[in-house]
Amino acid sequence: MERDIKSLIAQMTLEEKASLCSGLDNWHTKPIERLGIPSIKMSDGPHGLRKEVPNQRNSVPSTCFPTAVTTASSWDRELIKQMGQAIAQECQAEEVDIILGPAINIKRSPLCGRNFEYFSEDPYLSSQLATAYIQAVQSMGVGTSLKHYAANNQEYRRFTIDETIDERTLREIYLSNFEGAVKEGKPWTVMCSYNRVNGILASENKYLLTEILKEEWGFEGFVVSDWGAVDERVDALEAGLDLEMPSSYGIGDQKIIEAVKIGKLDEKELDQTVERLLKIIFKAVDNRNRGTTYDKQAHHKLARKIAGESMVLLKNQDNILPLKKEGTIAIIGAFAKKPRYQGGGSSHVNPTKLDNALEEIEKLVQGKAKIIYEEGYNLDNDEMNQELIDKAKETAKKSNVAIIFAGLPDRYESEGYDRKHMKMPENHNKLIEEVSKVQPNTIVVLSNGAPVEIPWIDKVKGLLESYLGGQAGGGAVADILFGEVNPSGKLAETFPKKLSHNPSYLNFPGEGNKVEYREGVFVGYRYYDKKEIEPLFPFGYGLSYTTFEYTDISVDKKEITDKETIEVKVKVKNTGKVKGKEIVQLYVRDVESKVNRPEKELKGFEKIELEPGEEKTVTFKLDKRSFAYYNTEIRDWYVESGEFEILVGKSSKEIELKETVKVNSTVTIKKKYDRNSLVRDLLEDAKTEKIILDVVDSILEKIKEPGKEKEDVNDVIKWIMDMPLRGLVSFSKGNFTDEMLQKLLEVLNK
Amino acid sequence: MERDIKSLIAQMTLEEKASLCSGLDNWHTKPIERLGIPSIKMSDGPHGLRKEVPNQRNSVPSTCFPTAVTTASSWDRELIKQMGQAIAQECQAEEVDIILGPAINIKRSPLCGRNFEYFSEDPYLSSQLATAYIQAVQSMGVGTSLKHYAANNQEYRRFTIDETIDERTLREIYLSNFEGAVKEGKPWTVMCSYNRVNGILASENKYLLTEILKEEWGFEGFVVSDWGAVDERVDALEAGLDLEMPSSYGIGDQKIIEAVKIGKLDEKELDQTVERLLKIIFKAVDNRNRGTTYDKQAHHKLARKIAGESMVLLKNQDNILPLKKEGTIAIIGAFAKKPRYQGGGSSHVNPTKLDNALEEIEKLVQGKAKIIYEEGYNLDNDEMNQELIDKAKETAKKSNVAIIFAGLPDRYESEGYDRKHMKMPENHNKLIEEVSKVQPNTIVVLSNGAPVEIPWIDKVKGLLESYLGGQAGGGAVADILFGEVNPSGKLAETFPKKLSHNPSYLNFPGEGNKVEYREGVFVGYRYYDKKEIEPLFPFGYGLSYTTFEYTDISVDKKEITDKETIEVKVKVKNTGKVKGKEIVQLYVRDVESKVNRPEKELKGFEKIELEPGEEKTVTFKLDKRSFAYYNTEIRDWYVESGEFEILVGKSSKEIELKETVKVNSTVTIKKKYDRNSLVRDLLEDAKTEKIILDVVDSILEKIKEPGKEKEDVNDVIKWIMDMPLRGLVSFSKGNFTDEMLQKLLEVLNK
Repeated sequence: MERDIKSLIAQMTLEEKASLCSGLDNWHTKPIERLGIPSIKMSDGPHGLRKEVPNQRNSVPSTCFPTAVTTASSWDRELIKQMGQAIAQECQAEEVDIILGPAINIKRSPLCGRNFEYFSEDPYLSSQLATAYIQAVQSMGVGTSLKHYAANNQEYRRFTIDETIDERTLREIYLSNFEGAVKEGKPWTVMCSYNRVNGILASENKYLLTEILKEEWGFEGFVVSDWGAVDERVDALEAGLDLEMPSSYGIGDQKIIEAVKIGKLDEKELDQTVERLLKIIFKAVDNRNRGTTYDKQAHHKLARKIAGESMVLLKNQDNILPLKKEGTIAIIGAFAKKPRYQGGGSSHVNPTKLDNALEEIEKLVQGKAKIIYEEGYNLDNDEMNQELIDKAKETAKKSNVAIIFAGLPDRYESEGYDRKHMKMPENHNKLIEEVSKVQPNTIVVLSNGAPVEIPWIDKVKGLLESYLGGQAGGGAVADILFGEVNPSGKLAETFPKKLSHNPSYLNFPGEGNKVEYREGVFVGYRYYDKKEIEPLFPFGYGLSYTTFEYTDISVDKKEITDKETIEVKVKVKNTGKVKGKEIVQLYVRDVESKVNRPEKELKGFEKIELEPGEEKTVTFKLDKRSFAYYNTEIRDWYVESGEFEILVGKSSKEIELKETVKVNSTVTIKKKYDRNSLVRDLLEDAKTEKIILDVVDSILEKIKEPGKEKEDVNDVIKWIMDMPLRGLVSFSKGNFTDEMLQKLLEVLNK
Repeated sequence: MERDIKSLIAQMTLEEKASLCSGLDNWHTKPIERLGIPSIKMSDGPHGLRKEVPNQRNSVPSTCFPTAVTTASSWDRELIKQMGQAIAQECQAEEVDIILGPAINIKRSPLCGRNFEYFSEDPYLSSQLATAYIQAVQSMGVGTSLKHYAANNQEYRRFTIDETIDERTLREIYLSNFEGAVKEGKPWTVMCSYNRVNGILASENKYLLTEILKEEWGFEGFVVSDWGAVDERVDALEAGLDLEMPSSYGIGDQKIIEAVKIGKLDEKELDQTVERLLKIIFKAVDNRNRGTTYDKQAHHKLARKIAGESMVLLKNQDNILPLKKEGTIAIIGAFAKKPRYQGGGSSHVNPTKLDNALEEIEKLVQGKAKIIYEEGYNLDNDEMNQELIDKAKETAKKSNVAIIFAGLPDRYESEGYDRKHMKMPENHNKLIEEVSKVQPNTIVVLSNGAPVEIPWIDKVKGLLESYLGGQAGGGAVADILFGEVNPSGKLAETFPKKLSHNPSYLNFPGEGNKVEYREGVFVGYRYYDKKEIEPLFPFGYGLSYTTFEYTDISVDKKEITDKETIEVKVKVKNTGKVKGKEIVQLYVRDVESKVNRPEKELKGFEKIELEPGEEKTVTFKLDKRSFAYYNTEIRDWYVESGEFEILVGKSSKEIELKETVKVNSTVTIKKKYDRNSLVRDLLEDAKTEKIILDVVDSILEKIKEPGKEKEDVNDVIKWIMDMPLRGLVSFSKGNFTDEMLQKLLEVLNK
């Protein structure tokens, strides 16, 4: 419906305008009945709907899909679209206008308590998957809230911690995930984070909220605060924070009114905020689809499919997987019965039903194999229970294969706090060590929201990272273990061997109220690559029951300017015996750069399905941003002219094909010289090189000793290369004066 | 001689005062004959005297002792004293008043071109050895110049690079080496470095030169510029730079005169500088010992002894060393004949004589073994010479043992430029690989000024790090190889497996004109320890031909305040068959700290000599600084009350004994609270804990729902721990107002 929002605003009183800028309660905006302005409803997400019911402990049942750490491992835009559409349908059914998510903060440290809600350590992968989610949800008339903007990378002191990040790192890593999702996904709303960024609360950060998000990226929706993130309401409004949530109990509104009255706040700024709010409020209302219902069974089935295509097979020695439905199979570990399938906090969904792996395996084998279950450990604590272990060992010993379900219990991972270490509970680790001693065919299925240290990796034959698989995760595990589904997930994050190897380790979670991102752009695989520290499992890694062959890389152009694009094609063939999906990854490497760049960065990926023997051509398109870094001098993305390698492979460590292209910058950066510029700096450019050579030559003429020949300028220049220009005065024994230096600088800077 | 310097200054004209503030030429201060002010002479050092002679290519011959990287590995204060005294004697003989050194910059990166001139990656070890050197030289009436102050940790762009270092790191690592040497050693002069520190040129850095060096540390001598380090002379003078070197061709003096005339510079400041200069000038003159001579042979012998007690035995598989004087011994590698024994640049000494290992070995074996020499590689370039390698292999094959001399040629390491990588020349590596294939008894003797990557470590049985052994280094190598000297050096720096493992790797040599020390205090072993990255050879490591046993650690007190000291005693016994020296190292570990501290830090070391079977007690004294970190909040050294481990061992990785003590701080730090302080922060202190519990309890009373019981404050506090105090307003549903928050803050901050 077309509305004249500007004339509506003209009719509003100052008090009405202010009232729109904070919540009615925990979940609604304030209606203004006099003007026909409705209230809209937000609810938590994002891997399912968490709609609170007043005075009830549990939220309304909804499908609990796998959490973001899991779905990110699918690397499958299409799959995430299916999930987004299903979740939106449930929102419509529950009369929710905006679901809060997706959450796309970068996994700076494996310890961050909310990592399970986030996609990846890589900004490109994060932004691509977030875009798919946003577009899918919004295509169904439900809004999203891209969160938490920005740099909310830890829970410890999250309300006040000052995330201190240099500009290039901020742009390349912690903003470019949001940038892509905002520009391509066009979320209705963006949620600002609790923390400070470079000294300023995200809720009051004009640089982030207005200059970058709204002006530079063209975001047209409204900015909502994370719940309780607003400190000074007027500062926040001026910075670009449109909606304070939850209710401010009148305080925030009153502050806005007063600020306008005393002339501290221009009412026009308030009008802009109100306009942004009204546009989305009406958009939400216009897109409501009351009476929507959904098929719980169908969504549960979809959740199983998504989980199955997301889980990552990390080890498969002797092709122990898939298992045959025969013999005796020991199923060990309490997680097999009581699955760990999502994380704690605002994203916690009340599932419509809950499968467990034990029952799903039993259903799948249909009595063809004997299944024996052992608890293995207590779920409630980390203490070893020797009795449970002994029983597990006994059962494992008399079985043909043992499948151990282990990982991180609920209490380990939640919104609100970070882990202190990366270890699994002692009772889980010990169980695996002990069982693997008596049963060579041991397979571990991990349930966890973030990487763990895996000291027993050499002692087991199979390892399936099931992450947090959602309400149907148990079935998905069964599908993969018995080959009903060929695993196709790949890690969206690095598994280091030890926590101490992680790039943020020396600077996490910070000191006092400040955390410095001293690793800079070297986050995740960017760090392990550069530092040559072998990870346990690299970014992009994952096994399949089939094999793939990469051939015939080709580019449509070998040399371009930074205004052009390059198309890259590779052929991928299924060389194994079963159908499978492969995630083809494209990384770009700047061969030489003046700034310290990662060894390579992900710039493209495609997931394809191949029948045995089938071959497909995968096409990627690369543009300026695929080659650029953020240049802080010109405050823009910049391609340094030169060679770039295009690396295509199965993971960040398995590069199969390589091509080199040349990209030429169309941007020239003007240099400035001063008395402390080095002679070396002038040699970089033919024009300034000539100038300095002439100057030095004339000095040599003046200082040559009687009877000796003048020294050769090219010989001399080599050893004064690192001299600052002011050194010419001393070098010339005073013949080159300070005044001559001033003139030289004028010439150089012309 | 007593002089009234103040009345002398009163007699000086402004022009005369200014004239004293820069050099007469390259090496002298200006005399003022009218007032009887003499000129004094400075010359380069520090591992020998480099006295230039006008119009001659070579400096005056003097004893070339091993360079600092070598002598630092002796960890022997007494030995360095002997060297200092000998060098001072040569200075007196050559009428040099001040020798420029010692150089004690921290080895932040193995690539720094001047590392061979510097002592260590550890500030304590650096300051202890520098103190020994300074005291020894000055005890002979010759001045020193402690350099390069500060943070001159790379050669790349050294004249202008901005070394960006956080305050705690600056204090704990890059200044505490100078601090110890200034306070204990009392050098006559300190030389400021070329580079910027946190934006300001060292020569104009008032914080470094005046506030810290002169005021805080009580330095009483004068500050001399590194040659050419002065940019703006007046700014430098005001910052505390007393003497500009070399001659400024009148320019600097004129600027000072003008600045005083126009009132920009207070003449009193100039007077202070002149007073500092005159004090040292007269001190130098008073301590002259004209007519001194020295025994070149004796100094050469001393140089051999020092080298022998500094070199580090890194590998000795099957006790291949010491060698017996029998059979056929292949001596391979051009370094055996043409030794690499010092580095390039201002420290380069013209030796009085030069031994090589080949001849010294021949002398030592006295014909009892057959010695065959093979060149192995060309010295002039890195290219493999297959012919030379083949000959070397043939000779090695028919010998009983092969000793390969390899390392870094002169061109690799010099003042003026940094290395780009940490590899040895390809022709050296290849030679070792090839010879070790045909001769299982291969020993490598390395000559280099800084760590190299050693890819062939598993292929050789013996490895002696001879570093840069000075003019008698060849003899020292012979002594060690054949057991005339039992090696007793230990590494004063870490050898990483790869350059990329080095802590500065991601931030060296910086971008543009700036280098950020993002690794912070985690330099050298502090990094490898914390990051659990296995080095090739750890800090403090070195082998002996005998073995030592550590027992009976004891402390005189188990608990002290930070105003008291602790005495630590350990017993060390020679449990082998030959006499040997052991370097006993003491590290301190803060068990728990609010700031991120290294796993352990060197706080004491002693080198002792033991006959076979002999046992000695080694005593260490620990004081506040042994336990403190630099607290940037109070801008002072601070001990966090709690437990500390005292770790005594053979190296940073071989801790043999451990004791725990408690240190209690006598300093209390006042906390400040504001609306963004977390509830968590108030729980840390009993007084503020009570206050917040009372506040929350009264809120719970107000918000309790009708008919329900009031919630327990202790239960609630757990889940609002990370809430900022401003959150109480929303948490209380508006019952706790902004005004009440203001009052609470007043109470808390009282």
